[in-house]
Amino acid sequence: MNIKEYLRAKKEMVDRALDLYLPGDDVEPKIVHEAMRYSVFAGGKRIRPILVIASAEAVGGNAETVLPAACALEMIHTYSLIHDDLPAMDNDDYRRGKPTNHKVFGEAIAILAGDALLTHAFEVITMCSEKVDGERIVRVIKELSEAAGSRGMVGGQVVDILSEGRNITPEELLFIHTHKTGCLFRAAVRIGAILAGASADKLNALTAYAEHLGLAFQIIDDVLDVTGDAEKLGKMTGSDIKKQKATYPALYGLKRSKELAEKEIESAAESLKDLSTAADPLREIALYLGKRES
Amino acid sequence: MNIKEYLRAKKEMVDRALDLYLPGDDVEPKIVHEAMRYSVFAGGKRIRPILVIASAEAVGGNAETVLPAACALEMIHTYSLIHDDLPAMDNDDYRRGKPTNHKVFGEAIAILAGDALLTHAFEVITMCSEKVDGERIVRVIKELSEAAGSRGMVGGQVVDILSEGRNITPEELLFIHTHKTGCLFRAAVRIGAILAGASADKLNALTAYAEHLGLAFQIIDDVLDVTGDAEKLGKMTGSDIKKQKATYPALYGLKRSKELAEKEIESAAESLKDLSTAADPLREIALYLGKRES
Repeated sequence: MNIKEYLRAKKEMVDRALDLYLPGDDVEPKIVHEAMRYSVFAGGKRIRPILVIASAEAVGGNAETVLPAACALEMIHTYSLIHDDLPAMDNDDYRRGKPTNHKVFGEAIAILAGDALLTHAFEVITMCSEKVDGERIVRVIKELSEAAGSRGMVGGQVVDILSEGRNITPEELLFIHTHKTGCLFRAAVRIGAILAGASADKLNALTAYAEHLGLAFQIIDDVLDVTGDAEKLGKMTGSDIKKQKATYPALYGLKRSKELAEKEIESAAESLKDLSTAADPLREIALYLGKRES
Repeated sequence: MNIKEYLRAKKEMVDRALDLYLPGDDVEPKIVHEAMRYSVFAGGKRIRPILVIASAEAVGGNAETVLPAACALEMIHTYSLIHDDLPAMDNDDYRRGKPTNHKVFGEAIAILAGDALLTHAFEVITMCSEKVDGERIVRVIKELSEAAGSRGMVGGQVVDILSEGRNITPEELLFIHTHKTGCLFRAAVRIGAILAGASADKLNALTAYAEHLGLAFQIIDDVLDVTGDAEKLGKMTGSDIKKQKATYPALYGLKRSKELAEKEIESAAESLKDLSTAADPLREIALYLGKRES
């Protein structure tokens, strides 16, 4: 299979659906809908929604059925970036080569646009009810809220914020990465599989895949902040060092960090050994993300 | 019936459930759970959760069944207060007589505690699935996310923020009040009724009740900011004038504002004319809130 073509086609599908599911910027109050759309359409790779789709397909489901859930994942990811960039948090002026939300719309609207995206994600996920029964959607909403909340993604950001400027242990770093990035990767894969009616065995295999992939993704993010091309990344490199952020290269060095990422990518692929060729897109996504440069 | 005793008993029930449903402050990362609990237990009257319960009871449902949804409403209300108080928004140092969340925990943790409460509300509402079928819970989640999002509560806050320091029209003021406060009141009453299986007719009557009550509540809030006792309110009075906030007294004067609030309270009670005595708590709540001094 051609993974680049697969990713391009699914990204296009997700982008169209996001445009459909987000309130138009002609809906009052316009400014907040403009702000929500600004960040959602600021050039994300749509990895989380594509994982929802590929995971559903890996167990015999189809993209259309899980598309609202896929978009919900991207809305939650986007809200987290808007809030992370705020002056009180990471205080970033640029994201994906563009001014961050609060630089364009001001802090108050940026906070509210983030709140609205998070809230809207749960509205959009209920739209799966056209094709999936209620019990299953309730289960998926539980997965998503747990993954995104204080014992998941928000919890990771809390520890990240608290760790700035001080030395942290490898355990703390692992906590940050598995929560801040890992929980949403895991939820994306699990939600796609649950909506498609995966068996318990397959769901376990996919969960392991997602956990390894999520960790690899974040280690590579850390590595790219040191070695990456600022233009390809659309943001300043070296910003982790400047902010004295906890990262894999800081704790393990560059060479060992790259090895650890490779090992996680291999483990991700290995987790899928009992799944059919329907899981090939997931296998290829792992290899592709292992080699990414932005 | 003794409405004070009713409110006391239901508040106690809600407080116990909130304690149960919120992660303990010994769960990592502790600081965010401490911050979430700080604001949830800062002395709210629990009006929204009590409306969920009273509305369910009005159509033959019971409190236990809707308790998770009742708590979800309070978590969303609390998150909105934490974010509204932030320096980038209303910049308030005190709320209910206590320092606001960001004054105690810092801005970053306050933003994240708000995000976590909003997210957790959707996790908690899925706990209704022990006693209610999935389709109905999905419907209720849709109601809640619409009411809390950019076309609801968040939208009201956006217009409120944009209106500070400039003259606004009566229509704009009505938009702010019906969205910022009204949408969550409406959702509380509707969610209780839907979970309890209300007929369409009864749901319509209850919706009208909630819309009148929500508007009355907010007009009285505006009036109390001018005439109220700072000690009873637990916050400085006159703060709306200081911030040049759009209010009913500013647009209509005190006397006319009080009359308008009374009219809304009457209309709220009138909306319930076809409901049985099971709706008496809702009727009494309207009268009680019409006379409130804090």
